[in-house]
Amino acid sequence: MLLEQWLKSYQPEELFTEEGALIPELQALAPVGEKRMGDNPHTNGGKLLRKLRLPDFSAYAVNVEAPGKSVAEATRVQGKFLRDVMAANLTSKNFRLFGPDETASNRWADVFDVSGRTWMERTITEDDHLEMDGRVMEILSEHTCQGWLEGYLLTGRHGFFNCYEAFIHIIDSMFNQHAKWLKTTSKDIAWRRPVASLNYLLSSHVWRQDHNGFSHQDPGFIDHVVNKKSDIIRVYLPPDANTLLSVTDHCLRSRNQINVIVAGKQPAPQWLTMDQAIKHCSSGIGIWEWASNDAEGDPDVVMACAGDVPTLETLAAVDILRQKLPELKIRVVNVVNLMTLQPKEEHPHGLPDRHFDDIFTTDKPIIFAYHGYPWLIHRLTYRRSNHHNLHVRGYKEEGTTSTPFDMVVMNDLDRFHLVADVVDRVPRLRQRAAYVKQYVRDQLIDHRHYIRQYGEDMPEIRDWIWSY
Amino acid sequence: MLLEQWLKSYQPEELFTEEGALIPELQALAPVGEKRMGDNPHTNGGKLLRKLRLPDFSAYAVNVEAPGKSVAEATRVQGKFLRDVMAANLTSKNFRLFGPDETASNRWADVFDVSGRTWMERTITEDDHLEMDGRVMEILSEHTCQGWLEGYLLTGRHGFFNCYEAFIHIIDSMFNQHAKWLKTTSKDIAWRRPVASLNYLLSSHVWRQDHNGFSHQDPGFIDHVVNKKSDIIRVYLPPDANTLLSVTDHCLRSRNQINVIVAGKQPAPQWLTMDQAIKHCSSGIGIWEWASNDAEGDPDVVMACAGDVPTLETLAAVDILRQKLPELKIRVVNVVNLMTLQPKEEHPHGLPDRHFDDIFTTDKPIIFAYHGYPWLIHRLTYRRSNHHNLHVRGYKEEGTTSTPFDMVVMNDLDRFHLVADVVDRVPRLRQRAAYVKQYVRDQLIDHRHYIRQYGEDMPEIRDWIWSY
Repeated sequence: MLLEQWLKSYQPEELFTEEGALIPELQALAPVGEKRMGDNPHTNGGKLLRKLRLPDFSAYAVNVEAPGKSVAEATRVQGKFLRDVMAANLTSKNFRLFGPDETASNRWADVFDVSGRTWMERTITEDDHLEMDGRVMEILSEHTCQGWLEGYLLTGRHGFFNCYEAFIHIIDSMFNQHAKWLKTTSKDIAWRRPVASLNYLLSSHVWRQDHNGFSHQDPGFIDHVVNKKSDIIRVYLPPDANTLLSVTDHCLRSRNQINVIVAGKQPAPQWLTMDQAIKHCSSGIGIWEWASNDAEGDPDVVMACAGDVPTLETLAAVDILRQKLPELKIRVVNVVNLMTLQPKEEHPHGLPDRHFDDIFTTDKPIIFAYHGYPWLIHRLTYRRSNHHNLHVRGYKEEGTTSTPFDMVVMNDLDRFHLVADVVDRVPRLRQRAAYVKQYVRDQLIDHRHYIRQYGEDMPEIRDWIWSY
Repeated sequence: MLLEQWLKSYQPEELFTEEGALIPELQALAPVGEKRMGDNPHTNGGKLLRKLRLPDFSAYAVNVEAPGKSVAEATRVQGKFLRDVMAANLTSKNFRLFGPDETASNRWADVFDVSGRTWMERTITEDDHLEMDGRVMEILSEHTCQGWLEGYLLTGRHGFFNCYEAFIHIIDSMFNQHAKWLKTTSKDIAWRRPVASLNYLLSSHVWRQDHNGFSHQDPGFIDHVVNKKSDIIRVYLPPDANTLLSVTDHCLRSRNQINVIVAGKQPAPQWLTMDQAIKHCSSGIGIWEWASNDAEGDPDVVMACAGDVPTLETLAAVDILRQKLPELKIRVVNVVNLMTLQPKEEHPHGLPDRHFDDIFTTDKPIIFAYHGYPWLIHRLTYRRSNHHNLHVRGYKEEGTTSTPFDMVVMNDLDRFHLVADVVDRVPRLRQRAAYVKQYVRDQLIDHRHYIRQYGEDMPEIRDWIWSY
């Protein structure tokens, strides 16, 4: 009764037609076009989006005369490219870098030649690249970085977030909401214009926490990301600087996605020329012919890898195997775009089954060295025909402050364990397995003694170079 | 030179013996026993740990005369038990509940009969259970709750964290550090005494966000948790109130672990008597004989479920199948302890392969209705013999504010999709498949029309009761 009285006090008979629709005079009060709240350029930021001016990334290529002969820090090379992206877009003011206090640590410091860190307060002479109009947003709060970047993208600009791999989990929950927002607005709401993708560089990754140790080791953000809708998410594991450049250029051009790139910052061997890198990244996965010796027949084993450190260990294992067992036919597969592993029906980048079977065979053992938690590779490939022959090595929560090689040894991802994995799984090697495995055991014992005595890896590990 | 001068100024010849060891007088200065920093009871909190006084949890049992005949809110029943745990340990002051502003929303409000929310400021009469010495720590900051609870456990006390399932991701990174800390201290450091486990209740879960919608739907914390070392982590999905009671009692007695319990707070059918619940939870996985009809021979299909809503939908599907296809032999399997699915070598709770094969068969189709992201079940079971016959339904990031049943329909987890999944996968049903699938289609069309018109689920869905 009271409710009815109250509602009737608004005199609905004056506001609605007999059919219950709003009267035309009131309907006319609603704003139209860009005056509508959701279609206003301030909220539909895609309307304001302008393409970035991008220099030719191939101009930053590391010279690779032969695989493994050059050494470079991948993210430092990327930083030079980003410096020039920053320079090219300074006047349009639509590009920023975001991150906790790690811009220099993750090797992007060259960007400071062009623009400093945003800082509104008084500065003193000792301050390092602080500027009132600096375009590098640096604050030791991953939450703030993520929030800033989301707002920046949603209002029509472009950006890149760099973070230590382990600590990006701090914004897991915020990532979820952005992914859900993108899924809903890009698929279900036709009038929303695409915005620039949210790009993450995760560096200082799980395998190279030589001084920080176990607390700084967590490659699980990838696992978190791949649970979100497949149209939205991309994960890239470029194995060297040239592939990282190619992937970076691609991510800066993409729209309405979340791109996760994991790449190392330490000096590391370089594998591909820029031409090879572009082709490899376009496919996202491929056989490395120069490392394989099965071109003229069936392989005995497929050695797959994803991530810079697993790629290094895989190639070092192949090197040992080709010396010790020259008759063994090995196919080396590298994965840059992790989503290629999923079936086509599950992810737009997924390889068709036929193509996957061509690469991984349908009956040969696959030893897969992976950057993160090994189970993820099984989760992505369990429907593939040769899945039962797939054996994955990765991070299994073993670690401490130790040498880089000891980290891979603790997790059975090192070249020697990979050699043993191959010997265990290729039937025709049974006869000679004992000898090779004894060699592996001896090497691992040498390793343990050496690092205990000298605190660094053995010279033959540190200085190993691909020999073919 | 300067360095040498400076170091020599400490006169090392007076401090060290010729062999380079500290001289005995200085060695004697180091504290011994509990005076050592790490062995002090304030830092080695396990030394102060006293067992909780626990009332008999079976006294709180919901009366279940026949499966599905009683209705209860599982976490409200758990709240009554926790109320009395609180009461029994009030004088020893070593038990607290933690959570954002959700203690009442997650149905633990009964605990306020015994102790209020901690509040140090002035109160006014309208305030709801605020007390200076309240033992419920409530603050809308998951970070603060997690930090408080970790400190409380590490200093030898007991606690329980309740949270909306989707938002526990906020503390993903803090969880990581606690898990890494437990792994290191419980395995590698013999003199550290065990501390009470970190217990999470995740309620208001993905399937019942009727009013909050897509932003509140995320069952991925489980995925995050299972990447950590298996000795440390446990995940429980009790399907009703009595199983939740049994699991809760177990978690409060456990040490050095992280226990994640996911359970609903909405009125829901109750399946097991307390006696059945205790047996089921002790195994962690089991065939529900009362729901199965394959006791006298091989099943045609195994219908497995984990989580309260998937269990409801599975039983409703079994009900339909047994009515429409009475000759079909169905085995119903329920999983409370998710870790039983993993191989024994991967997790201490993992079922031996032989036992797993007994339950899931080695050759029959398995339709698995799972609470979270479906891929997790594949990741846990990919090594099992019958994995190639496993078909999992779960949350695939589809959702909005809608009815409870519409949520499961959007994710193909509803009874009708499950019926269709069975019909598609049992070869001898091919002949009749078209009829059953037409029935399924018709039901789903009715559902869509009905909820659009009435804004709630069809009576036959809302009021469905297990009929055997």
